[in-house]
Amino acid sequence: MFIYLFTDYGSSDLYVGQIKSVLHQHAPDAQVIDLLHEVPAYNIKAGAHLLAALAHQLPPDSVTVAVVDPGVGGVRAPVMMRADGRWFVGPDNGLMSVVAARAGNAQIFPITWTPKKLSASFHGRDLFAPVAGRIAGGGLCAEQLQKKPRLDVEFGADDLPEVIYIDHYGNGFTGLRANGVSRDALIVVDNRRIGHARVFSEVPAGEVFWYENSLGLVEIAANSASAAGKLGLQTGQPLSLAA
Amino acid sequence: MFIYLFTDYGSSDLYVGQIKSVLHQHAPDAQVIDLLHEVPAYNIKAGAHLLAALAHQLPPDSVTVAVVDPGVGGVRAPVMMRADGRWFVGPDNGLMSVVAARAGNAQIFPITWTPKKLSASFHGRDLFAPVAGRIAGGGLCAEQLQKKPRLDVEFGADDLPEVIYIDHYGNGFTGLRANGVSRDALIVVDNRRIGHARVFSEVPAGEVFWYENSLGLVEIAANSASAAGKLGLQTGQPLSLAA
Amino acid sequence: MFIYLFTDYGSSDLYVGQIKSVLHQHAPDAQVIDLLHEVPAYNIKAGAHLLAALAHQLPPDSVTVAVVDPGVGGVRAPVMMRADGRWFVGPDNGLMSVVAARAGNAQIFPITWTPKKLSASFHGRDLFAPVAGRIAGGGLCAEQLQKKPRLDVEFGADDLPEVIYIDHYGNGFTGLRANGVSRDALIVVDNRRIGHARVFSEVPAGEVFWYENSLGLVEIAANSASAAGKLGLQTGQPLSLAA
Repeated sequence: MFIYLFTDYGSSDLYVGQIKSVLHQHAPDAQVIDLLHEVPAYNIKAGAHLLAALAHQLPPDSVTVAVVDPGVGGVRAPVMMRADGRWFVGPDNGLMSVVAARAGNAQIFPITWTPKKLSASFHGRDLFAPVAGRIAGGGLCAEQLQKKPRLDVEFGADDLPEVIYIDHYGNGFTGLRANGVSRDALIVVDNRRIGHARVFSEVPAGEVFWYENSLGLVEIAANSASAAGKLGLQTGQPLSLAA
Repeated sequence: MFIYLFTDYGSSDLYVGQIKSVLHQHAPDAQVIDLLHEVPAYNIKAGAHLLAALAHQLPPDSVTVAVVDPGVGGVRAPVMMRADGRWFVGPDNGLMSVVAARAGNAQIFPITWTPKKLSASFHGRDLFAPVAGRIAGGGLCAEQLQKKPRLDVEFGADDLPEVIYIDHYGNGFTGLRANGVSRDALIVVDNRRIGHARVFSEVPAGEVFWYENSLGLVEIAANSASAAGKLGLQTGQPLSLAA
Repeated sequence: MFIYLFTDYGSSDLYVGQIKSVLHQHAPDAQVIDLLHEVPAYNIKAGAHLLAALAHQLPPDSVTVAVVDPGVGGVRAPVMMRADGRWFVGPDNGLMSVVAARAGNAQIFPITWTPKKLSASFHGRDLFAPVAGRIAGGGLCAEQLQKKPRLDVEFGADDLPEVIYIDHYGNGFTGLRANGVSRDALIVVDNRRIGHARVFSEVPAGEVFWYENSLGLVEIAANSASAAGKLGLQTGQPLSLAA
């Protein structure tokens, strides 16, 4: 049984270990895998599109704890979702909504359970991890859960024409799915027009290009260099297509 | 069986993997969890207060390898501690001493074993991990161990009125336990006076406040912004309370 | 069964989790350990010397996925190697070649299998992880594999007189094995001459020295301070010995 973590909690901070401690106590046999803890902080929209790009790879019946939660402790609701056979647990603030909108089948379940002790700021540890652990351990199943018709916050299925993630090489992921973009198209960001290449080694060292990355997204990259450094890319930066 | 790691070895460097390799060879069935590897480097005192705040969550009989060890290879002694049913293994330099001072019951055991090969600088891998692995694997038990009356270095049970950790959001953890601080109190840092809020979403975006964080500590934070950036917070910075 | 990961994929990015997901699906009982994901980006030579220094510690029959792969998607070949009883899987671009050159016994096997879906840029996930998982799961054994006489790219067994890694403390690892260097020798970097000490606590706080680190390499360090900061060390910087 696989439990994936997808958060903006930071891969170096002390949050992830506390979540894993709870998960392993609830589901000792589960394999817990860090998918990403560096979703741009507080950026629910970027997170929603990254999660949608990653979700295809997750095995059936896996459980993903998905938390980017600037509204923690406020009015946003906690929620479980089963989309195309995969579970997601986290805040109902839009983060799961691109997965939901693109899924063939998505069922939404409110989380009605509350833990004995709930901190004001760390529902990942106190609420979402115990729920995910119970799903993974077989203690919750879709048939017995109360449903709600839809998520409270929905971003829809459309692509997001923005930089949504910059990796440590300096590659800029976009919210555009590459299978909808012609290889002849140029990506325009900050008035720079960027052409396509299949892969890094096809362009000279240092040259900027776009390609279909391993998540199926349009990515702005440079061969053995930082595209983000060369272009001043930033998360949230808008982009457009040109012929 | 759970083994936790709490160090300043860095979450991105090549130290943690080497420790895990040793642990898994000694205790194949143990679950090894990274609690924190970004204790401020060399800062034993900050580490001691973070460890004390985290220790409450650790399950009974768990083993924590706790290493912030600027004196490695020098005269400081290696030590095992069992405090309120939880084990800790590491250098006797104060790092475990706040846990010890606040525990209902703490037993201290010198580590007399030495490995065949002991590097001068990486006792986490060569000494503490094998010992922790043997405790976790059931090969060492408190009843059969030689005791010593107390730790060599003791910081005591008192709170530490300093910034002890800054997370990647820019929140500043303090060494003050929140249950001893009135919600009407102001935290004063660098002549800035900071009022209380229950949670991030209770203040406007960008506004600085303090709250009881998920470890029970007073934390200086800002809603969807970096308090450390706004206030110039640094680890070790002193603070005080005002009415 | 142990699978180690040694890459420049970044410990905080979304690459490692995807690899682990594939590995655990192929080899559910394997223990997967992150050795290092911060090999200096694209720096195959530095990676080759770090890997050679780490390899001694790896248990027999372990499998290491070793990927620093700026030529991914180009002409470089994928390869498996069994060296002194340990497996390595990755690109044949020199990365494994220092391990090979120093091994008592190294066998090289071309990877002829190709996955149904192979991304242009992430062979770690699509090609090397499934192969490593099959080795770890017992599905591939050396006796049945086609061999090739040698690696395509070979750096040889010699030491590399350069800074090959800078850790988060600011210590500078070099590609020099310490057992070949007299304790009376000085390390010369950028015209600074640096003397030997056994360990950090033997020099005053802030003082720069070199010592044999826990991997057996000459390391330039400073007591409770950043040698890299003090000296302006950079990965790839050349160094020499003086009497």
